[in-house]
Amino acid sequence: MECYLDNSATTPVCDEAAQAVSDALLHHWGNPSSLYRKGMQAEDLLQDAREAIAERLNCRAEEIFFTSGGTESNNIAVLGTAAAMRRYGSRVVISSIEHSSVEESARQLEAQGLEVVRLPVGADGKVSEQAIFQAVNRNTILVSLMAVNNEVGSVQPVQALRRAVRAAGSPAVIHCDAVQAFGKLPSLRPGALGVDLMSVSAHKIHGPKGVGALYVRGGYKKGGAAVRISPRTFGGLQEGTLRPGTEPVPAIAGFGAAVRALPDAETVYARMEQLRSYLLDGLCAIDGITVNSPADALPYIVNISTLVNSEPMMNFLSRREIYVSSGSACSKGHKSRVLRSMGLNNALISSALRISFSHRTTTREIDLFLEGLAEGKRTIRTARR
Amino acid sequence: MECYLDNSATTPVCDEAAQAVSDALLHHWGNPSSLYRKGMQAEDLLQDAREAIAERLNCRAEEIFFTSGGTESNNIAVLGTAAAMRRYGSRVVISSIEHSSVEESARQLEAQGLEVVRLPVGADGKVSEQAIFQAVNRNTILVSLMAVNNEVGSVQPVQALRRAVRAAGSPAVIHCDAVQAFGKLPSLRPGALGVDLMSVSAHKIHGPKGVGALYVRGGYKKGGAAVRISPRTFGGLQEGTLRPGTEPVPAIAGFGAAVRALPDAETVYARMEQLRSYLLDGLCAIDGITVNSPADALPYIVNISTLVNSEPMMNFLSRREIYVSSGSACSKGHKSRVLRSMGLNNALISSALRISFSHRTTTREIDLFLEGLAEGKRTIRTARR
Repeated sequence: MECYLDNSATTPVCDEAAQAVSDALLHHWGNPSSLYRKGMQAEDLLQDAREAIAERLNCRAEEIFFTSGGTESNNIAVLGTAAAMRRYGSRVVISSIEHSSVEESARQLEAQGLEVVRLPVGADGKVSEQAIFQAVNRNTILVSLMAVNNEVGSVQPVQALRRAVRAAGSPAVIHCDAVQAFGKLPSLRPGALGVDLMSVSAHKIHGPKGVGALYVRGGYKKGGAAVRISPRTFGGLQEGTLRPGTEPVPAIAGFGAAVRALPDAETVYARMEQLRSYLLDGLCAIDGITVNSPADALPYIVNISTLVNSEPMMNFLSRREIYVSSGSACSKGHKSRVLRSMGLNNALISSALRISFSHRTTTREIDLFLEGLAEGKRTIRTARR
Repeated sequence: MECYLDNSATTPVCDEAAQAVSDALLHHWGNPSSLYRKGMQAEDLLQDAREAIAERLNCRAEEIFFTSGGTESNNIAVLGTAAAMRRYGSRVVISSIEHSSVEESARQLEAQGLEVVRLPVGADGKVSEQAIFQAVNRNTILVSLMAVNNEVGSVQPVQALRRAVRAAGSPAVIHCDAVQAFGKLPSLRPGALGVDLMSVSAHKIHGPKGVGALYVRGGYKKGGAAVRISPRTFGGLQEGTLRPGTEPVPAIAGFGAAVRALPDAETVYARMEQLRSYLLDGLCAIDGITVNSPADALPYIVNISTLVNSEPMMNFLSRREIYVSSGSACSKGHKSRVLRSMGLNNALISSALRISFSHRTTTREIDLFLEGLAEGKRTIRTARR
């Protein structure tokens, strides 16, 4: 039996999404920009998916802009905002544990002469509200904080950003990378959280790869939008010119279907907490396991250290068709910046494993993982530190 | 019977591509960056598609970089090159009839202070070699010319670019937007043409929307590549960091399958020439038709003016399930910049129709179009100019 516990890297595509992709490919292959009926049918699919996402985020469909994925959403948010806001200041505030698509975009801004303040995290993998208030000043043009960290699951105080920006009298645009939170963190609503921009992705919630979305408060209108943001891509009139290029209609239709098929986040949350408890209980029976995720993390993500190097352990487990990861898939085996920021020592960092659930995960899979882990620890004698 | 003659806007997805997308969605949904087998299987799909495209272009798989589509490929080529080449000069040479994704990117460069020279075209929709030689100087950092124009099908003298760049002693990078030419123009090979960068797209050749590729001569290596180009998107290690973000594996697999399913360009070319002759013969029998495409255009694209305004004519035809367009789908009904550049008057521009073939197009479809057009001209009495 296959045991897939790397749902924060990607998820199996649900039947509804696969069917929607297939329908769009076979029956609605028109160009949504074409003015005739065949084009409009494709445009209708886009609108339907836009509404599905808007409903989940409790926003308007016109506030949703499709992108090629979470990385592009984050790039538009960080680089597009900085470009549009430059004359209002020069400070950008992010956390030290953002996804590489935010971190690397911020490095680009540093190369352009902007000041990037990286908020530290505690041993709990969380930025403190106090640190946010201290970092945001009148010169700050962008604050970008992830809702849930992708490696350890720590939930960040996103709701404090608006207060900090107001208190500082700052013009800053507030962005939230919600790729790991979307569909999982109950009450993830940009309006209630007070954020201007929010990134989400399809393939983390059983949708297809190659599509994401960016929520933009008030929508986008060149030169006259509520949120100051510039496009990063130039060309046709698609997505209100915020993101030109023929839309990936099949992937977007699949995104919409995946969102609609997603069970209620609150209901699943409780079950995920049980699943996590079940995992943690099982881990107690194995020697030398450290849990790196904080107790109040999103229960979908559990980061542990095993004192056996991550790579041989992952290989051992994957031979048994048990799939976990050592951290972010996007950084492909590089040492974790997130765990380092949390103050973990090298032995813990180099033996880290991320176990990540989806609403489909079962206790049977946890059992198999626990057996595999125990066996792996016995088999792989010497941990390379 | 449906009669789809707008294949330059988009194409129906072929069975092979639809199957490949579906297989990837259902069976190979792993993250290609994941280090275990499930990830490697997805990575294998990427490699297979990369090889299919490389074979067609007679280049190496390592020279192919996946993007979200033609628009993004063109944006990376124009803006990424200009960013990397800035210290070598400040002139960019394009044609006056480039796709909006090149034209709008060039406008961004103008806003940044670069000089953009737009080569004029003659009544045949073609840039002259002489104009290229005159425009390219030592200060030129980028020359971007499309292989085939998307609205009229004119084939541009791309092979002259390398000679012009050499003659001028220019450091310029040479880019070719081959979105309309790929799989259609025989011997479209970046190596033989002497271009450094080439953009292609899947959905113009019966592949899925949401994926394209950029050929980069010699591949991409940060700081040390044969071609100077900077990424436009920042994040993970995907596509050699030239285009980070989890790859759209299903769409890429579909792209590869579509390329492999594509018949030999040379064989189809002869048939397309016959089809065009058939269309042109039929048009002779209808009063007041002007053919805007030059005689030596790619036979897949025939642009005409009918003296009846484009929009009512398109609407009339689409009610009969006959689909043509007034120009580029991306510009959604705006007046054609291409036809204006060719010196056409307003009456011709506002009544233009683009008929575009694929290797699947039949004479029966041409018959239906001709009948519809004749009937439309009778029905729609007054052309709004």
